[in-house]
Amino acid sequence: MKIRTIGLIGGGVIGAGWAARAALNGLNVRLCDPDPEAERKIAAVMANARRAYSRMTIAPFPPAGELRIVATVEEAATDADFIQESLPEREDLKIELLARADRAARPEVVIASSTSGLLPSRLQSRMGRPERFTVGHPFNPVYLMPLVEVCGGARTTAATKERAMAFYRTLGMHPLHVRKEVDGFIADRLMEALWREALWMINDDVATATEIDDAMRFGPGLRWAFMGTFLIYRIAAGEPGMRHFMAQFGPSLKWPWSKLTDVPDLTDALLDKLVAQSDAQAGTATIRELERLRDDCLVAVLQGLKGRGFAAGATLAALEQQLYQRLPAMAAAAKVDETQPLRLLKSRVEPGWVDYNGHMTESRYLQLFSDASDAVMAHIGADTAYVAGGFSFYTAETHIMHKREVKEGEAVQATTQLLGADDKRLHLFHALYRTRDETLLASAEQMLLHVDMKANRACPALPGVRANVLRLAQAHAGLPRPADAGRRIAMPAPKN
Amino acid sequence: MKIRTIGLIGGGVIGAGWAARAALNGLNVRLCDPDPEAERKIAAVMANARRAYSRMTIAPFPPAGELRIVATVEEAATDADFIQESLPEREDLKIELLARADRAARPEVVIASSTSGLLPSRLQSRMGRPERFTVGHPFNPVYLMPLVEVCGGARTTAATKERAMAFYRTLGMHPLHVRKEVDGFIADRLMEALWREALWMINDDVATATEIDDAMRFGPGLRWAFMGTFLIYRIAAGEPGMRHFMAQFGPSLKWPWSKLTDVPDLTDALLDKLVAQSDAQAGTATIRELERLRDDCLVAVLQGLKGRGFAAGATLAALEQQLYQRLPAMAAAAKVDETQPLRLLKSRVEPGWVDYNGHMTESRYLQLFSDASDAVMAHIGADTAYVAGGFSFYTAETHIMHKREVKEGEAVQATTQLLGADDKRLHLFHALYRTRDETLLASAEQMLLHVDMKANRACPALPGVRANVLRLAQAHAGLPRPADAGRRIAMPAPKN
Repeated sequence: MKIRTIGLIGGGVIGAGWAARAALNGLNVRLCDPDPEAERKIAAVMANARRAYSRMTIAPFPPAGELRIVATVEEAATDADFIQESLPEREDLKIELLARADRAARPEVVIASSTSGLLPSRLQSRMGRPERFTVGHPFNPVYLMPLVEVCGGARTTAATKERAMAFYRTLGMHPLHVRKEVDGFIADRLMEALWREALWMINDDVATATEIDDAMRFGPGLRWAFMGTFLIYRIAAGEPGMRHFMAQFGPSLKWPWSKLTDVPDLTDALLDKLVAQSDAQAGTATIRELERLRDDCLVAVLQGLKGRGFAAGATLAALEQQLYQRLPAMAAAAKVDETQPLRLLKSRVEPGWVDYNGHMTESRYLQLFSDASDAVMAHIGADTAYVAGGFSFYTAETHIMHKREVKEGEAVQATTQLLGADDKRLHLFHALYRTRDETLLASAEQMLLHVDMKANRACPALPGVRANVLRLAQAHAGLPRPADAGRRIAMPAPKN
Repeated sequence: MKIRTIGLIGGGVIGAGWAARAALNGLNVRLCDPDPEAERKIAAVMANARRAYSRMTIAPFPPAGELRIVATVEEAATDADFIQESLPEREDLKIELLARADRAARPEVVIASSTSGLLPSRLQSRMGRPERFTVGHPFNPVYLMPLVEVCGGARTTAATKERAMAFYRTLGMHPLHVRKEVDGFIADRLMEALWREALWMINDDVATATEIDDAMRFGPGLRWAFMGTFLIYRIAAGEPGMRHFMAQFGPSLKWPWSKLTDVPDLTDALLDKLVAQSDAQAGTATIRELERLRDDCLVAVLQGLKGRGFAAGATLAALEQQLYQRLPAMAAAAKVDETQPLRLLKSRVEPGWVDYNGHMTESRYLQLFSDASDAVMAHIGADTAYVAGGFSFYTAETHIMHKREVKEGEAVQATTQLLGADDKRLHLFHALYRTRDETLLASAEQMLLHVDMKANRACPALPGVRANVLRLAQAHAGLPRPADAGRRIAMPAPKN
C-alpha cells in the first residue's frame, strides 16, 4: 500500500515535528489536537522545518502535502494510510485514544506510538487489532533527527514492524529495531542515566547546567554524533583490543566516578559477550582505519560547526584566527620576489572538493584562484584592515582554462602575473600547478575592479595600494605574456 | 613566559596525542616513555594528526616543533616550559613520577596531569611545589578534541590554573574550569553513568553494542555534539520553560527508564537552582532563536557526516538519493521548452556560500553554472548512467561575467543557450538570475568536450546523445546571440 496520507494524534512538539516531516516529504496530514493554539504552534514548527530543509540539501523535495487540522481522533484516522500517536506520556490517555483510532482506521493500516518509554504490550491492550500496533519513538526535532526506535508489544506482528520501518525510511529516517520490550527502550535509558548523573552534579554543586553542557559538547558529545560509546572505547583500546580495555578500565567502574556505582559483575560470560559484540561491530576494519574514520568524522563535525560559529566550531575558528594572525610575519619572512610571477598560494585538494571520480570539481578551481587573488590583494596592501575600511577589489570577469585533472590530497600552488593595471583595475593571470611535478592544471585570467563598498560603485584605489600596484606593474612589465591570455571562447573552424 | 618546549611524561594514546598537538602547533617536545615501541606508536599518532589537520583547515600551521624521545622523567622535565603527565591511571605511579618531575623542573613551570578522574590533592601530595600542579584532563584523540578539564587540588593556586588554561588555548583547545574537586570531574562522570547503563543492557540482553551505539549516533548523540542535555531539554520545553518541563518529565525519573533509579529529590530548592541555571545558560536568546541554532547545527553535522558517507550522514545521503530518483519524472512533468534558452536549474544561496558581507562567494557562481551544465547533460541523455558507462563532457574553458551581488537565502535560477555544437563539443551560454525580480546576476560561457574517461581523451558523443544535441542545436539556432558571448578580457583603451 502506498502511503499518501498520515493520521496524527496529538500536535505537541513531537506531533508537529511528524506533521512537518511528513508534509515536506509530500504526504497529506490529518492531525487532531484539542489545543486551540495547535494551528499556530504547528505553523511555527513547519516554518522551522522548511528553513532547515532548504539548508540541509538542494535535492528536490516533492510538492508539500496538505496539512489539515481535524477535530477528532476518528477524523484523523479514517482516511489515513499510517497513524502516529504523539500524546503526552500518560498511559491511560494513550490506551484510550489508540483504541479509538483502531476502531476508526482501515484494518490494514499500521498504528504507531511516539512514546519515549511506555510498554507497547500495555498500549495495545485495548485495541481490537493489537497486531497492527508498534512503538515508533522519534527524537526532537522530528523533522531532522534520523533515529526512530521501533519496538513491538507481545501481540505485535513482525510484518507490522517491518512496514513501519519501511515507511520511516521513505521519510529519510533511520529505524532501529528494539528487539526486547523494555521501559525506556535504548536511547532514553542512556539519556536518563546521563541526566540523573547531571542532576546529581547540580544538586551537589559540582557544576552548573552550563558547565555540564560544555563538558559534553566540547568533549564526548562530539564523538557521540557519529560513533557510540562502545566503538569509541574500542578505538581507544587500540591494537590490544576490547578485552584489554576492560582489564584496564573495568576496575574503574567500581570507583566513585559516578554517583551510582551499581554495575553488572564483569564475569567471563559478560566479557565474552562484550568482546564478541565489539568484534562484530568493528567487522573487518583495522584499528588504524577506524581511527581515521573517527578523525574524518570529527573534522567534518568541527568544520560544520565552524560554519555556524558555535560550540566546538567556535574553538576551531579561534585556532584559525591565531594561525592567520601569525601569517603576515610568515609572509614577510618568505620575501616575495616581485621580478617573477608572484608565488603567494599553496594549498591541498581537500576530501570534500572532489567528485565521484576523485577529481577536484570545477568550482574548487575558481575557489583556489579566488584565494590567489585575495593573496595578491593582501600583498599590495588591500588586506583585511583595508577591506574593513570599506574598500575592496571585486572580480568583474574570469576566464578559466582547464588543462589537467588533480586528485584528492595532492598539493597545489599558484603563480600570479599582473598583466595590467590602472587606478581602478587589476588585470591578473593566475596559473595553478601540481606541486610535486609542476604540471600546469589550469589558468585563470581575471579583471578586478576597485569598489567603494558602501556606495557600491567603482572608485580609484587608495594611495598606498596604488603605489604598490604601480611598483608591481613595473616589475612585471617585462615578463612574457602568457599564451592563454586574452582568449575568447569559440568553436573551431570546420575542417574541409 | 613563552612556552617553546613541552615535557611529556608517558607516551600512550593520550601522551602521543599531546605530542602531536604540541609539535604541530610549533612546540618542541621532550617525551619519556619506557616502552621500546614508543617511537613507532607515537609516529603512528603523529601521522594521523598530520592527516587530520590537513583536512581540518587550510590555515597555516607554523613549522612543526622537534619531537625527541628521552630516557627519563628528569630529561623530559629539565628544559620544559610546561609539563604534562599522561601515565596509566595508577595513583601511586603518578604520585611518584610527578614528584620526580617537580624536583627536575624549573620552579615557574606548570605541571599538569591528564588523569581522567584521580583527585589532584592526592596527586600533588608529594611534590615540593604542589602549588604549581593542576589536572588538565584531555579527550581522545587529543590532537582533535577541544575539551580539557582543569581541576586544581587543595594546594593549587588560581594562577597555576589560569596559566594552564591560557596555554591550552594557544593549542586550540577549550579549557573548562572544574571548580569542585571530585572523582571523575564532570565529563567522565557523565560518560561513566551512560556506560554503566549500556553495560547493563548488554548484560540483560536488551541490546547489542552495535544497537546501543546506533541508538546514540542516529539519535541524541547528534545533538550532544553542540548542545548538552540541559539546553536541549530547555528547547524541547518550549515557551512554558524549564520548570514546566521538570513538572512534566521529573516524575519519569522515578520510572524504571534506567537501571539505577536513585535520583536527587526534586525539592523546590533544587528546582529553583536548576531553573536559574537554565535561564542563565539561555541568556537573552528566545526559544525560537535557540531552536534555529539547534537546527542549523544539526544540519551542519548531518551535512558534514554526509561528506564522510557515515552514520547519520549516510541516512541523509539515502534520502537525497530517493529525492533525486524522483527527479526524472519531475523533469519530464515540467516539459522542457527547447525553443527558448533551457530552464533546468533552480537553487538557493545556502548559508555556507556567502562571505563575511553576506554575498555569495565567487566560486559558488561557478558551482551553480557547473550544476546547470550537469542539468543540460542529463537533458541530452548524458546522465549518470551514461557517465557510469565511461563517457562524459568535461569543461575545457569558462568565461564568467559578474553583474550583481546576491545574498544568503535568495532563490536563483539559470537559463542555458546552446551557442554551437559538433560531434565532440558543446558551446553553452548560462545566465544566472535572482528569481524574485529576474535580475541578471552573472553569466558563464563554457566549452565542454566529450571524453572517453578510461582513455582520458576526447571522442565523439554516442549516437543517442548526438541526436539530442543536434535537435537542441537546431531549436536554438534562431535565438539571438547574447551580447556577452565571445568576450576576451582586456584593459579599456586609455582615455585621451
